[in-house]
Amino acid sequence: MTFRLAASAPDFETAFQAVLHAKREVSEDVNKTVAAIIEDVRARGDAALVELTAKFDRLELDAAGLRISGEDLAAAEAKCDSATVEALKLAAERIRAFHARQLPAAEDRFTDEAGVELGHRWTAVEAAGLYVPGGTAAYPSSVLMNAVPAKVAGVERIVMVVPTPDGVVNPLVLAAARIAGISEVYRIGGAQAVAALAYGTESIAPVDKIVGPGNAFVAAAKRQVFGQVGIDMIAGPSEILVVADAQNDPGWIAADLLSQAEHDASSQSILITDDAAFAKAVEEAVEGQLKLLSREKIARASWEEFGTIITVDKLEDAVALVDRLAPEHLELAVADPDALAARIRNAGAVFLGRYTPEAVGDYVAGTNHVLPTARSARFSSGLSVLDFMKRTSYVRCDAQSLGRIGPAAVALAEAEGLEAHGRSVSIRLNK
Amino acid sequence: MTFRLAASAPDFETAFQAVLHAKREVSEDVNKTVAAIIEDVRARGDAALVELTAKFDRLELDAAGLRISGEDLAAAEAKCDSATVEALKLAAERIRAFHARQLPAAEDRFTDEAGVELGHRWTAVEAAGLYVPGGTAAYPSSVLMNAVPAKVAGVERIVMVVPTPDGVVNPLVLAAARIAGISEVYRIGGAQAVAALAYGTESIAPVDKIVGPGNAFVAAAKRQVFGQVGIDMIAGPSEILVVADAQNDPGWIAADLLSQAEHDASSQSILITDDAAFAKAVEEAVEGQLKLLSREKIARASWEEFGTIITVDKLEDAVALVDRLAPEHLELAVADPDALAARIRNAGAVFLGRYTPEAVGDYVAGTNHVLPTARSARFSSGLSVLDFMKRTSYVRCDAQSLGRIGPAAVALAEAEGLEAHGRSVSIRLNK
Repeated sequence: MTFRLAASAPDFETAFQAVLHAKREVSEDVNKTVAAIIEDVRARGDAALVELTAKFDRLELDAAGLRISGEDLAAAEAKCDSATVEALKLAAERIRAFHARQLPAAEDRFTDEAGVELGHRWTAVEAAGLYVPGGTAAYPSSVLMNAVPAKVAGVERIVMVVPTPDGVVNPLVLAAARIAGISEVYRIGGAQAVAALAYGTESIAPVDKIVGPGNAFVAAAKRQVFGQVGIDMIAGPSEILVVADAQNDPGWIAADLLSQAEHDASSQSILITDDAAFAKAVEEAVEGQLKLLSREKIARASWEEFGTIITVDKLEDAVALVDRLAPEHLELAVADPDALAARIRNAGAVFLGRYTPEAVGDYVAGTNHVLPTARSARFSSGLSVLDFMKRTSYVRCDAQSLGRIGPAAVALAEAEGLEAHGRSVSIRLNK
Repeated sequence: MTFRLAASAPDFETAFQAVLHAKREVSEDVNKTVAAIIEDVRARGDAALVELTAKFDRLELDAAGLRISGEDLAAAEAKCDSATVEALKLAAERIRAFHARQLPAAEDRFTDEAGVELGHRWTAVEAAGLYVPGGTAAYPSSVLMNAVPAKVAGVERIVMVVPTPDGVVNPLVLAAARIAGISEVYRIGGAQAVAALAYGTESIAPVDKIVGPGNAFVAAAKRQVFGQVGIDMIAGPSEILVVADAQNDPGWIAADLLSQAEHDASSQSILITDDAAFAKAVEEAVEGQLKLLSREKIARASWEEFGTIITVDKLEDAVALVDRLAPEHLELAVADPDALAARIRNAGAVFLGRYTPEAVGDYVAGTNHVLPTARSARFSSGLSVLDFMKRTSYVRCDAQSLGRIGPAAVALAEAEGLEAHGRSVSIRLNK
């Protein structure tokens, strides 16, 4: 039963809370299994990878066979439909151009009035690992969205892992790797691949950060190796919130809502509109389009269990609701989307106007499609170049400037009972 | 036994690996206890906070007494030594000035050659919670280091929690809160305080992000509420790595090494030098200064268990070792620190030259003292203004620009088997 709420109804707040807190994800507890796999890979390296790949992917390899060769990558690309490869290249170039603008100034140094030289420097992470799921969820677009920002950041070594169950791999995924400039690819997956990236084996050198989507085992493994390496966010099921007035074609808005519903039965599509008749027309269009989808079952489950239509008196009333929902994707299909957008604080990505379906952001807009889900846009951002960089701060005093700020440091160290802190400053004063 | 390594020794790599992988932290498994406390606070709100505070802090309150009033904050500041308060104010102003330069441009919008309007906007997190430990680890400087960047970012509501065991609170911690502009302070701590910040109670509204150091219970609680709210890094024991030539006063370098050793028996202090006689002189100075410390026992335990002295043939050989150690704090007490610094990739903060003891960075340099530990400087950065902000991306197509990039999106959606994605674009083409 799709949720239908009217902001003017007396029970609205209760109903809205139910939408906000709908439990969409059932988290499997796989922590013990994953911990054992990680231990095994740490202890036995390649031998464990070979065994686990035989067990889970039904694929017999030796250690030398773990890596997918450059020839295999090239052969995979050659097998792909050339129009699709061209589309991937267009996407890669647009993603590169957008993310290049995120590069921070490498260094900022200045000397303040006390004569203290201060600053910071950004440097790239040295090596990054990219997890790519196998099977039906193998999306070449995700390879680009994760690898291109790492390249732009200046990461020197990017390692891709992708499971190939029964030896099957999506050639477009390998083509995307080539287009993104990745040459080090291994045919491994699951928690064992995450463990190999984090700790290294005889044939795979460890990385410093692991990114990319995966199933419950991959997510649990990423959480467990966090600290040893950096990780990206653990993404939840995708979401779209469309704010639309009655001037839209209901069929267009229905298509947008379904574009997220088809991802997963746990996905959520929400429409906020100021026109009840339009809401009804969209619902009818959703029903009509659902029947056309080969993924109808998934999309229908998502729409019927989590789909939501909220009618508000006026569109401005949507602003507060959007901020509380903090959607991953927000479409503003209204006459003046900028006016609304300027007032909204919490959203991963905003699609402005009637001609910007969210799906352009999934592929070719240039913006990243790895975005905060489950209301985490309140405190986090989509994947960016900065996720593959880190900042080092710099301080330099000389005898004079230490003389100016040092005594305050000594006073605070003493107040905190940290004598050695105080001595390391006072021993240099008046010298 | 302090580690003593010579880079030219045949067993150096083995010995260095032992230093790299020394297990310094014993992680208590408190997850079950913490999960029960979080559940209790979610279920019973203020009543649970009152009970748990009576139990753990031996403090009888009613719900109205959870908050520390503005009068109490002012009274605490009035009790403090005025020179110390002035030092805190100097520190706050210098931290503010340094962090103000981290503020990103609020917005970047541009139209590319395809006619697609793209951009992003940075906004502040709406509400942040700051955990401050009670008892001996109550450091007013940490209040400033966490609160000032949040203020600079534009966080509208900053909530501080600090346990007051037996009703005792460090007045300097409250003075620091006032100086940082925090007015909402609660006398609660432990996992129950983290739960209250994440989920809210009748008298405490929830926040979006929680930062600040704490014991094993606080760290476990932060991990468990992550996702519901954002969290900062989970900091490990502190570290200092000093690269020093023989031109330094051994006593100065000994003081610097001890300034981190005195924090915690698990802290680690490392010296890298190109002069064995100098190394010996520093060791003797450490021994001499240890005896002067009221925290001698802690500092000695740290120095004897984890302290390390590495001699290298020439100072440039330190670069590769520094990058592998990825220290939280790096001092370059050499003639040309910039030349070395330019070649180093992994460090949280760098202190340049002979007159820049690390302790100035703990208090008054202006840089942040919340820095990546346990080699995580390979992939993460110190606390900054960006940790209290998030970025929303923007895309706008019109009919023409969608006509240019839309067909590639349709091609990729079809290649990925996502028909509704494709339809949401194709339905708008040629309209």
